[in-house]
Amino acid sequence: MNTNPDTICAISTAQGGAIGMIRVSGPDAITITDMIFLPGKKNKKLKDKNPYTLTYGRIYQQEEIIDEVLVAVFHAPLSYTGEDSTEIMCHGSSYILQQVMQLLIQNGCRLAQPGEFTQRAFLNGKMDLSQAEAVADLIASTSAATHRLAMSQMRGGFSQELSELRSQLLNFTSMIELELDFSEEDVEFADRKELFQLANRIENIISRLVNSFSVGNAIKNGVPVAIIGETNAGKSTLLNVLLNEEKAIVSEIHGTTRDVIEDTINIGGITFRFIDTAGIRDTEDTIENLGIERTFQKIEQAEIVLWVIDSRDAQKQIEQLSSKILPLIENKQLIFVLNKADLLSTEQEKELLPILSDFLHKDNIQHIRISAKQRLHTDHLQEMLVEAAHLPVVTQNDVIVTNVRHYEALIQALEAIHRVQQGLEMHISGDFLSQDIREAVFHLNDIMGEVTNDQVLGNIFENFCIGK
Amino acid sequence: MNTNPDTICAISTAQGGAIGMIRVSGPDAITITDMIFLPGKKNKKLKDKNPYTLTYGRIYQQEEIIDEVLVAVFHAPLSYTGEDSTEIMCHGSSYILQQVMQLLIQNGCRLAQPGEFTQRAFLNGKMDLSQAEAVADLIASTSAATHRLAMSQMRGGFSQELSELRSQLLNFTSMIELELDFSEEDVEFADRKELFQLANRIENIISRLVNSFSVGNAIKNGVPVAIIGETNAGKSTLLNVLLNEEKAIVSEIHGTTRDVIEDTINIGGITFRFIDTAGIRDTEDTIENLGIERTFQKIEQAEIVLWVIDSRDAQKQIEQLSSKILPLIENKQLIFVLNKADLLSTEQEKELLPILSDFLHKDNIQHIRISAKQRLHTDHLQEMLVEAAHLPVVTQNDVIVTNVRHYEALIQALEAIHRVQQGLEMHISGDFLSQDIREAVFHLNDIMGEVTNDQVLGNIFENFCIGK
Repeated sequence: MNTNPDTICAISTAQGGAIGMIRVSGPDAITITDMIFLPGKKNKKLKDKNPYTLTYGRIYQQEEIIDEVLVAVFHAPLSYTGEDSTEIMCHGSSYILQQVMQLLIQNGCRLAQPGEFTQRAFLNGKMDLSQAEAVADLIASTSAATHRLAMSQMRGGFSQELSELRSQLLNFTSMIELELDFSEEDVEFADRKELFQLANRIENIISRLVNSFSVGNAIKNGVPVAIIGETNAGKSTLLNVLLNEEKAIVSEIHGTTRDVIEDTINIGGITFRFIDTAGIRDTEDTIENLGIERTFQKIEQAEIVLWVIDSRDAQKQIEQLSSKILPLIENKQLIFVLNKADLLSTEQEKELLPILSDFLHKDNIQHIRISAKQRLHTDHLQEMLVEAAHLPVVTQNDVIVTNVRHYEALIQALEAIHRVQQGLEMHISGDFLSQDIREAVFHLNDIMGEVTNDQVLGNIFENFCIGK
Repeated sequence: MNTNPDTICAISTAQGGAIGMIRVSGPDAITITDMIFLPGKKNKKLKDKNPYTLTYGRIYQQEEIIDEVLVAVFHAPLSYTGEDSTEIMCHGSSYILQQVMQLLIQNGCRLAQPGEFTQRAFLNGKMDLSQAEAVADLIASTSAATHRLAMSQMRGGFSQELSELRSQLLNFTSMIELELDFSEEDVEFADRKELFQLANRIENIISRLVNSFSVGNAIKNGVPVAIIGETNAGKSTLLNVLLNEEKAIVSEIHGTTRDVIEDTINIGGITFRFIDTAGIRDTEDTIENLGIERTFQKIEQAEIVLWVIDSRDAQKQIEQLSSKILPLIENKQLIFVLNKADLLSTEQEKELLPILSDFLHKDNIQHIRISAKQRLHTDHLQEMLVEAAHLPVVTQNDVIVTNVRHYEALIQALEAIHRVQQGLEMHISGDFLSQDIREAVFHLNDIMGEVTNDQVLGNIFENFCIGK
């Protein structure tokens, strides 16, 4: 239950449109809105209107009309927040919106914190925490895939799967705890074999959820692609070409739900996130160590590595780095991008493939000859990227983890389940088993916000936009 | 009447907020919205809902949920456009908004032109043209003064004044035309003396409206301030200081209702529009002619001229230019801005005022010593600007012309009235008088859109934002 039931208000629309909307929620939402609002002729005050109706009228500041508006009225609990609420639709002038906000605040409203409407919806039991988090993802969604993940989570698919796990675990532990009550009699209510099967089943499900995070994260934040190579290889030209060719759909990720802003680009419906790497500088045939170190770190974050090489200098560049880079890409996709291919002599052209022959038999390594400057074959490189991303087709019914907080809680639940499995194998006593099971339940509860403290809530909702 | 009653849709909110709104208007607005919308449980289809109600439900694209939304329903003629309408409130994701728009268009809507909702409101008699134009001004309003002007015009204060003038003129002309029917009998139904008084009264009112344009324009577009001076005088430093010090409220005017984008700044509630002038370059004691020419033109557009002078070189700079600049500022405010005053020696300090003694006895000329770089006395300069702007306090009841189209029509009406006055003095025949009166009426009608053709309407509404 919401223990801080003051009345909050915020502008819920972005600045600059034809229409702006101000949202008011809390016990005095309707009374306060009535104080600044004069309904049109033959119309009632908002407090006398039915919920889910719109009333036309004017917002006044003393004698002056601020705007002609429509006001929607909602009664608790049938509103987004679960509280009494109004929504004021006015002209999208920044001046008008600010004036209406001022009037609301003068009459007793408080400016809402980011995400406070959704936080109230959570606190009032309208949704669980993972659903509340999905609201921010839904608003930030810019593609069919991100939209699908957020919608699935908002509709509670994820919560439902977790609830089932949790009730199985609770059932499991209550039987063990029952044994403890009868410990002197040395009975076993919980068949250890059945428990072992159940633990395995639950471990499977949580593992699947944990593993889904790499897909979920790639869809939500983009498939991480590191472009590595020496500084003269054409790395930044290639990046610019990739970004420019799709200029219209390049999306800068605003800091609504994520912290890092990187260059992202949508190719064939898949978002790619390009990780900047400092070019490796080749000074007098000794490769600068710092550059390599940095590049190594970036490769670790990537799922796809584009190794950009000046084709005319391919042998040297590959020889110098391959022993260091290849061990790092075992679980990643590597594409040798042989750049400046238009500048090759026929002789050099012939020598190119043999240089790569050591690598190309591996499944996760491919190559392509391009000219980033001339935009030669760069479209083909884009197709290779889409293929290398090998993202599964996601539907709104798939349960996929996209949230770092959920991922971390699931990892901890999984560790607790592993301890349960080991404990069962080692025939440890019921009270230790029970403790580990309760820990797994605790982490699952955490995801749904059932045991979450104010600190955690604050961290979650501060990343929301104002007005939601 | 609207002769093109297809159903239009547009996103009416700006991109990037928590909430987005899509507006649908036209004969099939409700039916088409029903096609993509599944109302929540126990709820009716939109076509069966009362007007001015909100319905919760989901927008579907085949099996997939696009969003959970609230839909408002309006029935003709009680809607903004005067047509059947719906408003779909959804999450502010660009993906969601685009998908909903696509669905509406697939089901028979057409993407609305800029301002088309307001244009329909005008064509359906919900407002006259000057009121429709005020809607765009209202949305663009960023200060109390611009808001007041737009609100006054939207409420029809302007139209009302024009209607009264028009009916007086029509009354006037009908009597004269009656005389023409009896021309052989040489009667005078219209007392020429009374007519003369009426013409004078109307001339007064229209003149007042025409004159109000300079105030209206200054409020709407900012008081034009030219910063002139030699390039080394510190002109651009001063401009930056003025703009930076009020960074938070510097508003770049987006091209919604205006064509030119200039640096504007709000000081003490008044918007100032700074007119860029090319600095006058002083090459080997001959002042470059081109620079002077340009500066002259800019001074003409300004109401306030800030003449920035390097204090250490004041005598020379003033001597060289004063004979050319002073004749241009007779109806303007001139402020000598003696810059770099912190660098003056005591000796130079003493010589400064005598240099200006020729000018400072005039009412419209002032001076101030500042250092733009050190921000010395720049706050005082801002106060002087506010005072020099001498804008009257405007209320929502004042009728002030802010629109160039209205201004031009009023000028033409005024010219016609002047011809009427002259005609009465010269005792010209009734048919000529009547023609001039009808011309004045024509131009007044033009403002309210009663005789306006599609071309004019197109020009007016293309400057609106989409979704309004």
